[in-house]
Amino acid sequence: MILDNVNSPKDLRNLSFQQLETLAAEIRQVLIHKMSISGGHFGPNLGVVEATIALHYVFNSPVDKIVFDVSHQSYVHKILTGRKAAYLNDDVKWSVTGYTNPGESAHDFFSLGHTSSSISLACGLARARDIKGDKENIIAFIGDGSLSGGLAFEGLNVGGEMGTNLIVVVNDNNMAIAEPHGATTLHLTKLRETKGKAEDNYFRSLGFEYVFVENGNKVGPLIEAFTKVKDSDHPVVVHICTQKGKGYRFAEENREGWHFHAPFDIETGQKKGGFVGENYGFTVKDFLLKKMEKDPSICVITPAVPMTCGFNAEIRKKLGKQFIDVGIAEEHAVTMAAGVAKNGGKPIVVSLSTFYQRTYDQIAQDLCINKCAATLLVRNGSVWGDRDETHLGFFDIAMMSNIPNLVYLAPTNCEEYLAMLDWSIEQDEHPVAIRIPCNKLVHTDMPVDNDYSILNKSLVVQKGEKVALVALGDFFQMGEKFAKAIEEEFGFKPTLVNPRYMTGVDTELLESLKSDHQLIITMEDGIVEGGYGQKITAFYGECNMKVVNLGLMKEFTNGLTPTEIFEACGITSDNMLSIINKYN
Amino acid sequence: MILDNVNSPKDLRNLSFQQLETLAAEIRQVLIHKMSISGGHFGPNLGVVEATIALHYVFNSPVDKIVFDVSHQSYVHKILTGRKAAYLNDDVKWSVTGYTNPGESAHDFFSLGHTSSSISLACGLARARDIKGDKENIIAFIGDGSLSGGLAFEGLNVGGEMGTNLIVVVNDNNMAIAEPHGATTLHLTKLRETKGKAEDNYFRSLGFEYVFVENGNKVGPLIEAFTKVKDSDHPVVVHICTQKGKGYRFAEENREGWHFHAPFDIETGQKKGGFVGENYGFTVKDFLLKKMEKDPSICVITPAVPMTCGFNAEIRKKLGKQFIDVGIAEEHAVTMAAGVAKNGGKPIVVSLSTFYQRTYDQIAQDLCINKCAATLLVRNGSVWGDRDETHLGFFDIAMMSNIPNLVYLAPTNCEEYLAMLDWSIEQDEHPVAIRIPCNKLVHTDMPVDNDYSILNKSLVVQKGEKVALVALGDFFQMGEKFAKAIEEEFGFKPTLVNPRYMTGVDTELLESLKSDHQLIITMEDGIVEGGYGQKITAFYGECNMKVVNLGLMKEFTNGLTPTEIFEACGITSDNMLSIINKYN
Repeated sequence: MILDNVNSPKDLRNLSFQQLETLAAEIRQVLIHKMSISGGHFGPNLGVVEATIALHYVFNSPVDKIVFDVSHQSYVHKILTGRKAAYLNDDVKWSVTGYTNPGESAHDFFSLGHTSSSISLACGLARARDIKGDKENIIAFIGDGSLSGGLAFEGLNVGGEMGTNLIVVVNDNNMAIAEPHGATTLHLTKLRETKGKAEDNYFRSLGFEYVFVENGNKVGPLIEAFTKVKDSDHPVVVHICTQKGKGYRFAEENREGWHFHAPFDIETGQKKGGFVGENYGFTVKDFLLKKMEKDPSICVITPAVPMTCGFNAEIRKKLGKQFIDVGIAEEHAVTMAAGVAKNGGKPIVVSLSTFYQRTYDQIAQDLCINKCAATLLVRNGSVWGDRDETHLGFFDIAMMSNIPNLVYLAPTNCEEYLAMLDWSIEQDEHPVAIRIPCNKLVHTDMPVDNDYSILNKSLVVQKGEKVALVALGDFFQMGEKFAKAIEEEFGFKPTLVNPRYMTGVDTELLESLKSDHQLIITMEDGIVEGGYGQKITAFYGECNMKVVNLGLMKEFTNGLTPTEIFEACGITSDNMLSIINKYN
Repeated sequence: MILDNVNSPKDLRNLSFQQLETLAAEIRQVLIHKMSISGGHFGPNLGVVEATIALHYVFNSPVDKIVFDVSHQSYVHKILTGRKAAYLNDDVKWSVTGYTNPGESAHDFFSLGHTSSSISLACGLARARDIKGDKENIIAFIGDGSLSGGLAFEGLNVGGEMGTNLIVVVNDNNMAIAEPHGATTLHLTKLRETKGKAEDNYFRSLGFEYVFVENGNKVGPLIEAFTKVKDSDHPVVVHICTQKGKGYRFAEENREGWHFHAPFDIETGQKKGGFVGENYGFTVKDFLLKKMEKDPSICVITPAVPMTCGFNAEIRKKLGKQFIDVGIAEEHAVTMAAGVAKNGGKPIVVSLSTFYQRTYDQIAQDLCINKCAATLLVRNGSVWGDRDETHLGFFDIAMMSNIPNLVYLAPTNCEEYLAMLDWSIEQDEHPVAIRIPCNKLVHTDMPVDNDYSILNKSLVVQKGEKVALVALGDFFQMGEKFAKAIEEEFGFKPTLVNPRYMTGVDTELLESLKSDHQLIITMEDGIVEGGYGQKITAFYGECNMKVVNLGLMKEFTNGLTPTEIFEACGITSDNMLSIINKYN
């Protein structure tokens, strides 16, 4: 294999264009094989094999600095920069992270995972270069799907005025995770159709020189274009057209399904193993579709993650104006929801905990000051969600529960989740967020409340004595388990509380616990600091009640499993019992 | 006066164009007179008198819905929609708010104050209209300075694809608060110079029809343009050129100085009364200029608020590449700082507490995961900052102090502020934010530490007994006062602590206080929930120490004075003494 002799970018420069094409084919096979074992961002990486080779052929990394947007498409970059061993083995577990990682290589500049930041980061690298009087090339490599994010525009807007070397490679595969959305998408299509000649060029309007490369899966034209813009003294966009999932039939045919893929059988494209059965995504899909059919004023808004509520392409089409994918534009999604609510619609925003981090200000200003009755569904806010340091769902409780006027709900099972959602859609007084449980789907036989308009009212599931477990959201089942363990070990029944609301405490209940309880243990699936449990601790600040807050550590953990985190945070039966032991 | 007979928009439609021009002149005089007494957003409102008249002449508000971006330019709108009495009186105190306010009028749809949200809100109004099958016009009125914000782009990007009635009026006065920045600014200049005919039209690239109005301070052409686009079945941008501060010589000549203006003498343009003397803004300006001269790797980045650190036009020019105003683009400012730091520069971002709300994700992802040594200066994070519900600086501690890897510092006086800033600039391990005190500038005779690398180490300013006051940042002087009051009233010296760090607690100190203290009172200039004091309460959750957290309420207060807030939150000597009394 040619790849055998490629250990760093400089090795590429000894190869002919023909050899580089062969290398691309080899890398593609390596990627397909490795991802069939370990899973990964399949489509994005298969699409950029040639572009990555060409970048490293032309530019002198790491002196020249390439910033990959999101960096989920950096596998080829890792292969070419000394980390190919991680892709050539058959280990199920990855030995490199799925994103660029400065800890792994001097060729990686940032730990990245959220979209649309690469151009702004590149602007910063470029400005530092200029004040130091250095001369290297700064390159941002960004997908068309990421251009819809406001931060990408802000980067272009500033970069376009800086008047210095800044090369933005727009990797246009005409896809986000799902199909792309927004006017820039239509504009890129026009540019593709006219081979870059369409009028009213977006990039030129923002001060960039514009270069079009029709075949972005061919090494030659890419090398030619990159060579032309290398050492430019002004900002340039190189618009390259690539095919997502190129070289693997199933991925070419179903680009959304193969954006990220679990381990699979190469012959059939069938997923191997993995989760089967009910999940909260499917449940809410059926529920929502029924509601939306009856009530045309309900409108689902998503920033490019429609599958969060199970809305596949067919459903999306059928829903017409009641569904809108705004592209990767979380801020807009939340602010638009405020507008829909204000004009009599019933908006539901659907996204992930980690991406709601983009919307703190929009939640506070547009929704909460204006008390717009919108619903935010928050998925993967959990230790059972993503494990990458850039995609952790540990922080949303601390971030959102301290915003005035917001009602942030934590359902503990399927029936409660749908009842809360139903209430939220129908009420018109509060902005409401709902944290979708992330543990295995749980059903309850108990009746659940339909009305959540009396805010902050906890549910006492088991009335006991001495110790109260306040177990929030998807930690509730763990609370049940701990309660049982306490009874078995110590012979008394502790109180078990489902707090339901994260944005305030049930002062009446907490007051009443003073009479026959000495210890409260709060449990939450998020960081302790600034979280829900500390509100309870603060409530008891002036009295004799002892309070222990269990939850996650304030830390960007990377790749830790839930079990590892539980051990580190003392969220275990053993620790629970030893806490009780101190007081018994 | 013609204005006497104008009580609602429909009254405009009985007037001739000539009478409308006279009305504009009358309104301008009313505004100048009223703002000379009460202060206000002077330049923005004087610039949009004719445009507002024309909008209300053509469109049928409130059926047709106008969303004013930021809405600091909505005074004329308020005059025309039944609220002129608030502008015709000589009361110093305003009887209407400075922004649109649904509580005041059915013509106002949102309480707004942060920029760039109007188009997204309009998209929401439009989508709700369309699913309901209604037909009204939806208008977003946005300044050129606000176009640099990513949210404005996201709104255009979605709106441009929606293919429905959506009218965006771009009010181009070629200014933000200071001069505008970003490539869109250069583009708008080209459009002005070519009377709208320049190539590569930004708005058209995003799917909007584009209409140019050269004289946006003349009623006739505006009415003509708005009439033309009324009831459009597709998205349209109307680009109108106006003069900020039009009709008042001093404001026309110094547009930055008159963006907002305190009460003034109409004849001379001189400010009446107001604050004189040292302030933290000037102090940091001199300090920074000296540092930046010696060290060319220091780079100040601001999202359109350079005066936050006292950088006037002359200084900005002189600093060259060491200063960059990125336009209203807070997210970019923080992310760009990460890039500068990563390439060996020393970036300092300068903005306001309320605007940092836009950057939660960029602080967490780009700065903190990557441990980029950038400095964020946070101004007006205080009860003494802005009073409007949309500009409160009460929330930054809760928002930022729970982000991993961030070091958030709370200086208590001038010398400590500059020492912390100096340390932050020179160290290369941590992202650091510094909360600029907002009370009257205080000097200290005590030596201050130069090294803050041992994190979370509090400063015990007075070692006492029984009670410890932990007084954060600009509440420290109040802590001193309370400590004295306690000694006088109860005859013992309490301990007084300056915690300095908000992102963690001094566990060693807190442990040691257990031996001879029974009560801790924390005091912070921010909301209690999720804030600093609750970290201390949580520390003592399992022991007998009593803790009271004093701070602001989790609420969007509107227009309350600091004294009113102190009363409401019990941050008074009397309350303090009554708390101690309980334990004495």
